[in-house]
Amino acid sequence: MKIVCFGEIMMRLNPEGYQRFVQAERFEATYAGGEANVAVSLANYGLDASFVTKLPSNPLGESARNAVRHFGVDTKDIVWGGPRLGLYFVEKGASQRASKVVYDRAGSSIACAKRTDFDWAKILKGAKWFHFTGITPALGGELPEICLDALKYCKAHRITVSCDLNYRGKLWTKAEAGRCMAKLVPFVDVLIANEADAADVFGIVGEGSDVENGTLDKKGYVSVAEQLVKRFGCKKVAITLRTSLSAFDNLWAGMLYDAKSAKAFFSTEYKVHIVDRVGGGDSFGGGLVYALATKRGDQASIDFAVAASCLKHSIEHDFNLVTVSEVETLAAGNGTGRVQR
Amino acid sequence: MKIVCFGEIMMRLNPEGYQRFVQAERFEATYAGGEANVAVSLANYGLDASFVTKLPSNPLGESARNAVRHFGVDTKDIVWGGPRLGLYFVEKGASQRASKVVYDRAGSSIACAKRTDFDWAKILKGAKWFHFTGITPALGGELPEICLDALKYCKAHRITVSCDLNYRGKLWTKAEAGRCMAKLVPFVDVLIANEADAADVFGIVGEGSDVENGTLDKKGYVSVAEQLVKRFGCKKVAITLRTSLSAFDNLWAGMLYDAKSAKAFFSTEYKVHIVDRVGGGDSFGGGLVYALATKRGDQASIDFAVAASCLKHSIEHDFNLVTVSEVETLAAGNGTGRVQR
Amino acid sequence: MKIVCFGEIMMRLNPEGYQRFVQAERFEATYAGGEANVAVSLANYGLDASFVTKLPSNPLGESARNAVRHFGVDTKDIVWGGPRLGLYFVEKGASQRASKVVYDRAGSSIACAKRTDFDWAKILKGAKWFHFTGITPALGGELPEICLDALKYCKAHRITVSCDLNYRGKLWTKAEAGRCMAKLVPFVDVLIANEADAADVFGIVGEGSDVENGTLDKKGYVSVAEQLVKRFGCKKVAITLRTSLSAFDNLWAGMLYDAKSAKAFFSTEYKVHIVDRVGGGDSFGGGLVYALATKRGDQASIDFAVAASCLKHSIEHDFNLVTVSEVETLAAGNGTGRVQR
Amino acid sequence: MKIVCFGEIMMRLNPEGYQRFVQAERFEATYAGGEANVAVSLANYGLDASFVTKLPSNPLGESARNAVRHFGVDTKDIVWGGPRLGLYFVEKGASQRASKVVYDRAGSSIACAKRTDFDWAKILKGAKWFHFTGITPALGGELPEICLDALKYCKAHRITVSCDLNYRGKLWTKAEAGRCMAKLVPFVDVLIANEADAADVFGIVGEGSDVENGTLDKKGYVSVAEQLVKRFGCKKVAITLRTSLSAFDNLWAGMLYDAKSAKAFFSTEYKVHIVDRVGGGDSFGGGLVYALATKRGDQASIDFAVAASCLKHSIEHDFNLVTVSEVETLAAGNGTGRVQR
Amino acid sequence: MKIVCFGEIMMRLNPEGYQRFVQAERFEATYAGGEANVAVSLANYGLDASFVTKLPSNPLGESARNAVRHFGVDTKDIVWGGPRLGLYFVEKGASQRASKVVYDRAGSSIACAKRTDFDWAKILKGAKWFHFTGITPALGGELPEICLDALKYCKAHRITVSCDLNYRGKLWTKAEAGRCMAKLVPFVDVLIANEADAADVFGIVGEGSDVENGTLDKKGYVSVAEQLVKRFGCKKVAITLRTSLSAFDNLWAGMLYDAKSAKAFFSTEYKVHIVDRVGGGDSFGGGLVYALATKRGDQASIDFAVAASCLKHSIEHDFNLVTVSEVETLAAGNGTGRVQR
Amino acid sequence: MKIVCFGEIMMRLNPEGYQRFVQAERFEATYAGGEANVAVSLANYGLDASFVTKLPSNPLGESARNAVRHFGVDTKDIVWGGPRLGLYFVEKGASQRASKVVYDRAGSSIACAKRTDFDWAKILKGAKWFHFTGITPALGGELPEICLDALKYCKAHRITVSCDLNYRGKLWTKAEAGRCMAKLVPFVDVLIANEADAADVFGIVGEGSDVENGTLDKKGYVSVAEQLVKRFGCKKVAITLRTSLSAFDNLWAGMLYDAKSAKAFFSTEYKVHIVDRVGGGDSFGGGLVYALATKRGDQASIDFAVAASCLKHSIEHDFNLVTVSEVETLAAGNGTGRVQR
Repeated sequence: MKIVCFGEIMMRLNPEGYQRFVQAERFEATYAGGEANVAVSLANYGLDASFVTKLPSNPLGESARNAVRHFGVDTKDIVWGGPRLGLYFVEKGASQRASKVVYDRAGSSIACAKRTDFDWAKILKGAKWFHFTGITPALGGELPEICLDALKYCKAHRITVSCDLNYRGKLWTKAEAGRCMAKLVPFVDVLIANEADAADVFGIVGEGSDVENGTLDKKGYVSVAEQLVKRFGCKKVAITLRTSLSAFDNLWAGMLYDAKSAKAFFSTEYKVHIVDRVGGGDSFGGGLVYALATKRGDQASIDFAVAASCLKHSIEHDFNLVTVSEVETLAAGNGTGRVQR
Repeated sequence: MKIVCFGEIMMRLNPEGYQRFVQAERFEATYAGGEANVAVSLANYGLDASFVTKLPSNPLGESARNAVRHFGVDTKDIVWGGPRLGLYFVEKGASQRASKVVYDRAGSSIACAKRTDFDWAKILKGAKWFHFTGITPALGGELPEICLDALKYCKAHRITVSCDLNYRGKLWTKAEAGRCMAKLVPFVDVLIANEADAADVFGIVGEGSDVENGTLDKKGYVSVAEQLVKRFGCKKVAITLRTSLSAFDNLWAGMLYDAKSAKAFFSTEYKVHIVDRVGGGDSFGGGLVYALATKRGDQASIDFAVAASCLKHSIEHDFNLVTVSEVETLAAGNGTGRVQR
Repeated sequence: MKIVCFGEIMMRLNPEGYQRFVQAERFEATYAGGEANVAVSLANYGLDASFVTKLPSNPLGESARNAVRHFGVDTKDIVWGGPRLGLYFVEKGASQRASKVVYDRAGSSIACAKRTDFDWAKILKGAKWFHFTGITPALGGELPEICLDALKYCKAHRITVSCDLNYRGKLWTKAEAGRCMAKLVPFVDVLIANEADAADVFGIVGEGSDVENGTLDKKGYVSVAEQLVKRFGCKKVAITLRTSLSAFDNLWAGMLYDAKSAKAFFSTEYKVHIVDRVGGGDSFGGGLVYALATKRGDQASIDFAVAASCLKHSIEHDFNLVTVSEVETLAAGNGTGRVQR
Repeated sequence: MKIVCFGEIMMRLNPEGYQRFVQAERFEATYAGGEANVAVSLANYGLDASFVTKLPSNPLGESARNAVRHFGVDTKDIVWGGPRLGLYFVEKGASQRASKVVYDRAGSSIACAKRTDFDWAKILKGAKWFHFTGITPALGGELPEICLDALKYCKAHRITVSCDLNYRGKLWTKAEAGRCMAKLVPFVDVLIANEADAADVFGIVGEGSDVENGTLDKKGYVSVAEQLVKRFGCKKVAITLRTSLSAFDNLWAGMLYDAKSAKAFFSTEYKVHIVDRVGGGDSFGGGLVYALATKRGDQASIDFAVAASCLKHSIEHDFNLVTVSEVETLAAGNGTGRVQR
Repeated sequence: MKIVCFGEIMMRLNPEGYQRFVQAERFEATYAGGEANVAVSLANYGLDASFVTKLPSNPLGESARNAVRHFGVDTKDIVWGGPRLGLYFVEKGASQRASKVVYDRAGSSIACAKRTDFDWAKILKGAKWFHFTGITPALGGELPEICLDALKYCKAHRITVSCDLNYRGKLWTKAEAGRCMAKLVPFVDVLIANEADAADVFGIVGEGSDVENGTLDKKGYVSVAEQLVKRFGCKKVAITLRTSLSAFDNLWAGMLYDAKSAKAFFSTEYKVHIVDRVGGGDSFGGGLVYALATKRGDQASIDFAVAASCLKHSIEHDFNLVTVSEVETLAAGNGTGRVQR
Repeated sequence: MKIVCFGEIMMRLNPEGYQRFVQAERFEATYAGGEANVAVSLANYGLDASFVTKLPSNPLGESARNAVRHFGVDTKDIVWGGPRLGLYFVEKGASQRASKVVYDRAGSSIACAKRTDFDWAKILKGAKWFHFTGITPALGGELPEICLDALKYCKAHRITVSCDLNYRGKLWTKAEAGRCMAKLVPFVDVLIANEADAADVFGIVGEGSDVENGTLDKKGYVSVAEQLVKRFGCKKVAITLRTSLSAFDNLWAGMLYDAKSAKAFFSTEYKVHIVDRVGGGDSFGGGLVYALATKRGDQASIDFAVAASCLKHSIEHDFNLVTVSEVETLAAGNGTGRVQR
C-alpha cells in the first residue's frame, strides 16, 4: 500500500553521548524530520512509503535523500533545487538537565518551495494515504497553499489523510497556527496531537488535564478529542501522553478516540529509560498510521503505536528502526529485555 | 593452582553504544566464549588458568589467542588449524528493547576439531580443575567425544570438573542436548545452571518456579538441585537467579546446593543497572570455581560468585575484569559506588 | 537504462587507519562485492542499476541490502534466505607493507543458492545489460549453472553481457576456473581482466608482459585481447594496467580493445597516492560499463573508466562515490586537486 | 567582580565510557582541578574569574592554560616553569562498581613552586574574593606558606576568602592536615566541607551523622557548622550532603550555616542519575561563591549551589558548564528534563 | 602590540579523514574564518590580537567565541545577536580528487550586522594594526560601509591596515568585487593576494603568469604588485604562489614587494605533503602581519610568512598552531622532520 | 631460545592522527620502551622473550605488563612496587613539521628500583641472550649498578649481550653517558648505534660522515665500528643509517660490522613513507638480535634487521608487529605492497 509523506528533512547534528554543545568537537550527522521519520517507520514495517520534499542539489541534500532511501523509502518524487538544507542541533539531556534543540532551518529549500514544484496528481497517483504534520505549513512561504493543494487532491481521490498537529512555537505564533491549521484540519481523517498541541493551536483544553504536573486525566483527553472531532470532523483523534520525570525517565502512553463509535481506547503506560527521545512523537505517528492502514482495530492500533514509540526511546537518532514483530512482542506484554540469542 | 578451561572462543562484534545492527558503521571487536571468559576470570583472580581450543592459523585466530593471553591465561595448549574463527554479533538492548545476539559460528576450527587434536594427558598434566560448558559438545562433530575423553582423564586423575549447562537452542534441540549431556554430567563435580537450563536439557523443573514471571521460589530451586544431584551424582549444584525487569535493570542472585550436607546457600539479591549483560553467567562460573577451588566454604563461595557477576554487569564486553578485593568488598556489603581516590 | 548486476555482497570489516589485524579493537563495517560495487557505480552515474544476490534474513543481510539501496540501487530482486552473510577482513597496507585480505565467505547464502531461487525472466525483464564477474561462479555449488541460466536468457533477449574475469586463487584452482569460464565467456560481449587474469584462467599470455616487474608492454596487452577475442568471440576486451610501486603509490592505466575495428585504445597513466585500493578494479568495470552503455566511443570509454578508477583510489571503502562530472573533469586532464569552493 | 582562584590544574585522563583502566586503548584528555573548576564556574556565570597556578613551559602546560581560558577565565597571572604537569586518571564507575581515581601529581610544577613565584599584591589587585581548597596546601613544599601569604594579603585588603576543606588522604595525614589547616582557616570567611572533611581534618563530628549509612541528620550538620564557626570564626559554613546509592544514583543536597544569624539553610534533596560525578563538589563551591558574591541571600545561595551541582552530575568531565538561567530554572523546581526546542 | 582582526567566523564541519560528504556519519566541528585564523596566528605568536565579529547569542555562537579565546585571542569586542552562525562544510581531497567546500553562510549574524553595531573608536583604541579580508565586504548588507568606517578610523589614527584580497566567486561577482574593493584598498598598507585574486578583482594580470599550468614567472608577479601599488598606493604587496600537483602535493612559495624600495623578495619554494590545506592562505597572512609588525625586514618577513604557512599545511583544521621558534627553524632551512625528543 | 630484555616500559600517549598536542582532546594509550619493543619483536618472531622491569602495583602498571604479555612476552619476572609508571607523549610530525616527544618519566618505579629488586641468577636462568639499551642506565639511581650486576652474571654464564647505545640528551649529559657506558660496553657482544650515538657517548666519529646533511659515507660508518670494536672488544657492531627527508619520507639502511672477519655488511636502502616512526630503531634491534640469535649470517642478519625496521615504519605505535615471513619477503626484494588476498 502506497503512503505519501510530505514535509521537511533536515540534517541533525548532535554531540556524542551527553556532551553539551559547548563541549562538542564532533557532531553525529543524521537526517530527520517529522514526516521523514514517519515514512521510514512505514517502509520499515513493509509498506510502500514515499517521501516528498524539496532538497538542494548538493552532497548534503543527496545525503538526506540517501538516508531515507537507505531504509526503503521511495524518494523519486523529491524535488531538487533551492538554497540550502535545513539543519538542527540536538544536545541530549541527562537527569535534571533537559535536552536542547537549536534549529537552523530558515531559508531551506523546502521552505522556499513553490506551488508549481509539486505535481500532486503525479505524486499521489495510486496512493491510499497522505501524511503531513503542522510543521510543514509552519515553514511559511507557499507551504500552507502547497499543503492545501495536496489535501484537496486527497479529498477528491479518497486518499486518507493523517496529520500530526506538532505545534512549534519557534516557527509561528499560536494565532498564526490556529488560523492556518483551521483551514487544513477539515481535510484530515486521523488527527494526532500531544498533550499541549490542541491547546496551543486551537485553544482546546480538556477538563482536568494538567500538563505541567504531568497528571493524566483520562476524561480530559477524551474531551479534547471530542472537541476536535466536533470542530473539524476528523474520524479519529490520537493523543500521546508523556510524563517527563527527568531527562532519563519518562512515562509514555496514548489514547485513540474513534468518532464513529464515540469511544476512547487507552494504551498501557510504559516507563521508559531514554536513549534518545527525539523522534518519539513521530514514531507514535508511524505506528498509528501503520496499524490503522493495515486495519488492526482501534485498541490494537493504539497499543501498536504506543509500543512502537516506547521502543523508539531506546534507539539512537530520530528513525524508529524496529520490526513489526518487535512492536507486537512488546504490545503483547513482553518488555523484560531478556537477551535474544 | 592450574585450572584448564576448554571450549570455543569467538570474535565478538558489537555496534558502539546502543546502536542497532542496521545502524552500525563500526563494530567493537573483542574475543570471548563461555569457557574463555571463565579462564580470564580465574587468571585475573591469580590462579594458573589455561585455555584450550582450536584456532585458525591467521591473524584473527592469533588475535583471539592474544586476547586471553593479555590477561594472563596460558595459551600454549591451543591447537592451530582448521577453517575459520567463529563470530557472534551482539546488539545491546535498552529499556524495553532486548539485546540481540546473532551467531555466525558454524564451521569454526573448534567445531571441526578431531579427537586426535587434543592430547589430554599432556594438556591436563598437573591440573587440579577442568571447566567446560554445555556449549562445547553442542558444537557437534567430534566434540562430545572430545569432551568425554577429557572427562575420563579427569576422573582417572582426580581432577575436579565443573560444567555450566548453558543450553543453546540455536545449536541443538533439547532432546539432543539431553541425550548428550546425560553422558557427560555424571563426570561433573560442580554443575552450574541458570533458571531454565535444567528444564531445557533434562526436563527437571522445581515446584513453584516460574521463569516467565521472574518470581523466585527458593524451594523450587532447591528441588531442581536435589534432582540433579540425585540423577547425576554431582557434589555441588549452583543456580543463577536472574529477574529481567528491563534491558537496563535486572535482579541478580544465586544459590549453591551442597550434596553432602544437603544444604542450600542463597546469596544476597542485587539490583543491577546494566552496562553489558553478555558474559554475566560466565562471570558467575568464574567466581564460583575460584571460590570453591580456594576453599572458601559454601556460603562464602556463592556470595563471591554472585558479587563477582554483579560487578560484571557494570563492565563492557564479556570478560569480568575485577579483582578479588573488589569482589570481596561488594560481597561484604559495600555497593555504594562511592569514588575511590 | 536498466542494468542488472549479479553476485555476492559481503560485509567488509577493516581496522581503522593503518592498524594491523592484531591491533584492531574496532572494525569499520561496510558492505561490498565485485558486482555490487559496479551496481553502485552505475546507480551513482544515473543509470537504473539492479543488484541481485541471495542474503540471509537477518539484520546483517538487511544491512547489506540497505548499503546498496542507500546509493539508489534497485534491490527488490534480492532473494532472501540461506545460512549466512559472507564476510571479508581488510588490513590496509602502507609503504612497503602490503594490504591483506582474509576472506570468510564459505557457506554464505549466495554460495548455497539454488537455480530455482532466480527467475531470470522476471529479473532481467526490461534489462539492457547484465554484469557479473568470475567470482560468482567461483563460489561453487549451483552458481556456474545459475550464471549460465542468466547468460542464456541474455543471449536470447539481446541483453549485452559484461564480465570481469577476476580470478581468485582462494576460491578455485586455475584449472577449475579455466574449465568453468570457458563455458561462460562465449556469452560475454565485454570482457574485463587485469594483467594476470587471462593467464591464470585461460593460460593466455601476451608477449613481453612481465607482471612482477610491472613493465607495461602495450603490444603484449593487445596480444592478450586479440587471443581472448579469437577464442571466445567477445566484442570488446578491457585490461587494467596496475604498476604497484608500494602500498601507497601505484601507476594506473587501462586498455580497451575493440574486436570489430581490431583497434586498441590506451588511457593516460595516472600516478595515484592511495587512500583505499580495494574496489579499484570494480570501479574500472563500473566506469567502463557506464561509458559503453551510454555510447561514449572507445577512446572516451577507456578514458572514463580509468579516470573513474583513478578517483576510486582516493575514496575509503569499496564503492566509487564519484559523479560523472568529476570523472569527466579528470579525464579531461584536471588532476591538480585544487580546492573547489 | 574579580575573583581569584589559586591551586593546581592537572591533566585528567579517563577511558571512554565505562571502560576500566585495564581495557583502555584511549583516554579522553581534559584539564581540571578543584580551584580551576570553581574558576570556570564563575567565569561561566559571568564573573571576572582569574586562575593562578604554576605550569610547565611545554605544550601540556599550555593546553591546561588554554582549557580554562577557553571558558573565559583570566590566565595572565599563571606562573610558568617547573618540572611537569600533574596528572590524574579517572575510571568511571557503574552500578555497584565504584569510580576510581589514580593520581600522578607528585613533583608537579605547582607542587615545586616557591613563595617568590607569586606576587600577591599584583595578582590580587582589584580582587573582591579569593578561593582555594585544602588540596593546595596539601601539595606540600612551600604551598602552605604561599597560601598564608595570599590569605594575609586578603585579610589586609578586605578580600573575602572561601575555602573548600577537601581532605585528600593520599596527599597528607589527618594530623598534618589538621595542623596546617588550623593556621589557614582562621582567614577564611566562607568554609565549605563535605560530610567527612570536618571530621578528617579537625576531628569535628556532629551528633547523629552517620556517613557510612548515608543518613542525613540535619541537627548533626548544624552542629558541625557551629563548631567550625566557633573554632575558626568563619562567617558562613556550607556542607554538601551526598548519599551514594550506587555509582549511578546519588542523593544530593546541601546546607548553609550563617554565623551572624546562627541559622542553617537546607536545600532540596535531588536524586541524580550520574553522567560524571567528578567535580561535583567543586561545582557546589562555584555555585555558592557566585550566589554569595552576587548577594543572593542564604536560602537562595544554598539553593543555587545545590541546583548547580545537581546539574554538574549530568555533565561530562569536571567543569560545570551550565548557565545561571539553567541553574535558576532547576532551583525554581523544574527538573523534568522536558526537551527545550 | 594590539592588532584587531575583523570578519566572519563560521562553524567548520568536515567528515573524518578522507571520507566524502555522502559517506559522513560524523563531522568534526571546529570554528574558523579568514580573519579569525589570522587572529589566532597572531595571539599564538605572542601579540595582543583581538577578533571582532557578530555572533548569535546561542551555544553555537559561544562555541565560536570560545574557539579563538582558547588560543588567547581577545574576544571582548565581539557583538552578540542576529539570526545564526555561518557554517561551511569541508571535504578533504586526496590524490587526483580535489577538496570541496560547501558554504552555508547566508543570513549569518555578521552578514546581517548594522553599522551601529560597531563602535570603532572603542574597538580600535590602542590598536596598532587592523586586518581584514575581501570576504568581509563580500558578505554584503552593510558590511562594505562597516569596513569603510573602520578603515577611515585607521587612517585617521595611523593604524596600519592589512587586507587579503581573497576573492570568493560564490559571494559576489568579479565586477561587484572590483567596484567595492576599489573603495577599500586605497586605505590598505599591506595588500595580500594569491595568484588569481588580483586578476579576478581588479583585472590586473602579470605578463607570463599562467595559473592553470602552475608555472611561476617571477617577473609576472612583480608586475602584478607594481600595478597594485600604482593603482592603490599600497606600501607592500604580498603574493602567495601555489602550484597544485595533486590534492596531496603542492609547491608553496611567496613574494613580498616593497613599494618604497621597488624591490621584490622571493621566498624558498617548499614541497608540502598536505594534511589540511584549508587556512593555508590565512596562515601566510598571519605570518606576514606578525613579521612586518615586529619589523623583521622584507626578506625575513616573506621567509617567515611562507615557512609559517608551509607548516600550516601539516596541521589539521584552519588554525596555524605553530610557535615562532618552529617557524624560524624551518625558515632557517631545517625541514627534515627529524623527531624532537 | 630464552632472551631476556631489561629496561623501562612507559605509557605512550599520542593525539590521534596528525593533531598537535594543543589540539588533542583524546590520547591513544599504548605501552612501550626500547627494550620492551625488542622483547615484543622477539616473541613475535617465535623466540622465548622475557621482559624485566619494575612497575607500580596499580592498573596502569598492570596495563603495561598486559601490553607485552598480549604478544607472548614472558612477564613473570617483572618486579612490582614503586611510585609510578613513566609516561611519554608523542606528537606525530607531518611534511616539514617534526614529530615531538615530551617525556614524563622522572620518578618512575624502574628509575627508583634497587639492586636487591633483581635476582639475576633467577631471572637469567636458562637464558641465552640479554638485551638492554643505554636508556636503562641513563635513568640513574641504582640502574647503572643493576645493569652491571646483570652483565657480570651474563659474562660468567656465557649469555650473549646486546646493547643499543641509544643516547638520550634529556636523561644525562654526554660526559655522564660516556663515563657510565664505558663501564658497561666492555660486557657487550653486539653493540647497536645510530649515526649520532657513538659520537655523543664516546666521541667516536667516522671520517666523512655528516649527520646533519644526511649523507651516507660507508667508509665513515666502518671506521666508527672499528673504533668501537677496538676500544670495547665488541664482537659485532651494527649501525642504523637514517636520512630524514621530511617527517613523512625517510631513507633507511643499516650496516653490520663483524670484528672477527673485520668485514662490514651493508643492507639495501629503503625509501619509507612513514606511518609511525617511533620505535623504528628498536625494531632494527629486534630484527638483528633475532637474526643473529638464529644464526642467519652477517649479510642475512643486517638484511633482516633493516627490512624488519623498514616495515615497522608502516605500523602504528612502537611495537613491530610483523612476521618472520613478512620480513623475509621484503628482504628478498618484494616491497611492491601488492594486495595479498
